Amino acid sequence: MSIITIERKILEKNEDLAKSNREIFHQKNIWTLDLLSSPGAGKTALLEKTLEILKGTIQTAVIEGDVQTDNDAQRIAKHHVPVVQIITRGGCHLDARLIQDALNSLPLDEIELLFIENVGNLVCPAEFDLGETEKVVILSATEGDDKPLKYPLAFHKATTCILNKIDLLPYVEFDVRIFRENALKINPELNIFECSAKTGDGIETWTDWLIQKIKNA
Amino acid sequence: MSIITIERKILEKNEDLAKSNREIFHQKNIWTLDLLSSPGAGKTALLEKTLEILKGTIQTAVIEGDVQTDNDAQRIAKHHVPVVQIITRGGCHLDARLIQDALNSLPLDEIELLFIENVGNLVCPAEFDLGETEKVVILSATEGDDKPLKYPLAFHKATTCILNKIDLLPYVEFDVRIFRENALKINPELNIFECSAKTGDGIETWTDWLIQKIKNA
Repeated sequence: MSIITIERKILEKNEDLAKSNREIFHQKNIWTLDLLSSPGAGKTALLEKTLEILKGTIQTAVIEGDVQTDNDAQRIAKHHVPVVQIITRGGCHLDARLIQDALNSLPLDEIELLFIENVGNLVCPAEFDLGETEKVVILSATEGDDKPLKYPLAFHKATTCILNKIDLLPYVEFDVRIFRENALKINPELNIFECSAKTGDGIETWTDWLIQKIKNA
Repeated sequence: MSIITIERKILEKNEDLAKSNREIFHQKNIWTLDLLSSPGAGKTALLEKTLEILKGTIQTAVIEGDVQTDNDAQRIAKHHVPVVQIITRGGCHLDARLIQDALNSLPLDEIELLFIENVGNLVCPAEFDLGETEKVVILSATEGDDKPLKYPLAFHKATTCILNKIDLLPYVEFDVRIFRENALKINPELNIFECSAKTGDGIETWTDWLIQKIKNA
């Protein structure tokens, strides 16, 4: 029973810090997306493609979360946007405290849209509020159309879902209709995009939506 | 600091239970593999293909770990082997206590090889000893050749690695040579198989190795 109490305390403490992050984002008028996915679903590739398109239109910044290595921050830095790498050294998710620390290293007055690329893990990151405006869950078409049912919390907490790697659909057993049904069963309000970060297919539907959101915010 | 102490207690408690599971496996002469991977890397498909080939040669059983749904146990049950489904309801990994409970539902005297399919998560399951003989990490070729460096603990704890979905290699940017270098950098003793659970390519190299292991045990 003591374990449960302490887990609750960790989550309560996180809620407080998330609230404080949310106030900062609100004050500074920063729209913040927490990107969740399995390892290798293509979060960084999608982010790179997105940054390319938003360049000159929206002022962006990125917080990169990884268990180990700063490979992703190095990829993002090539796009000349402010980036902070958090290495969790084994930790399976980001939390509001880590984001608070990262915000100290970002030029908050110059950011309209902040992407937080969470640790590659479809389970734990969904439990933690970082103070973000919205959570976005990314699934790749190679992972299977049953995943919303098997990892429901991520799909429940997200407002938006991106189905990535649609260029691989001809080579895998993945029924987009069934995937949509499964995702909407978990979250009837889920906004679903289909794209390929590799070919660029469908990316502009996503970035147009982002631009509209920011410009109307 | 109290959190760290309690985490240590949880892991110590797990170690005790893992030791007790290991004694049971030793007594009953059961070789046990803990299968780790990201969601959608193809653990269940690989297991189904493996069970087909081992049928009539090795007496197998399966413990299925999932955050939600018993879809995987239903797939395994079609192969007429004993199967227990553990649904963690949000829990991000199996632990030795859950395995101990599952063992009560298995005909231990009739099992030579027990597969434990862990929750789809490349981070947390690597931290928990279940009492298994060996951990096997499965990576799909769609996840990227950098993953051993980004999720080192799973590759460090495993004795064997299976690169799955090699049928998709022509369509993705994945350099098998770089993947092998990265995996062996983390764990120079790692035994690596390459296969496709979909086409069956390379599966028999893996099952021949399994059969040799069991027959020589």
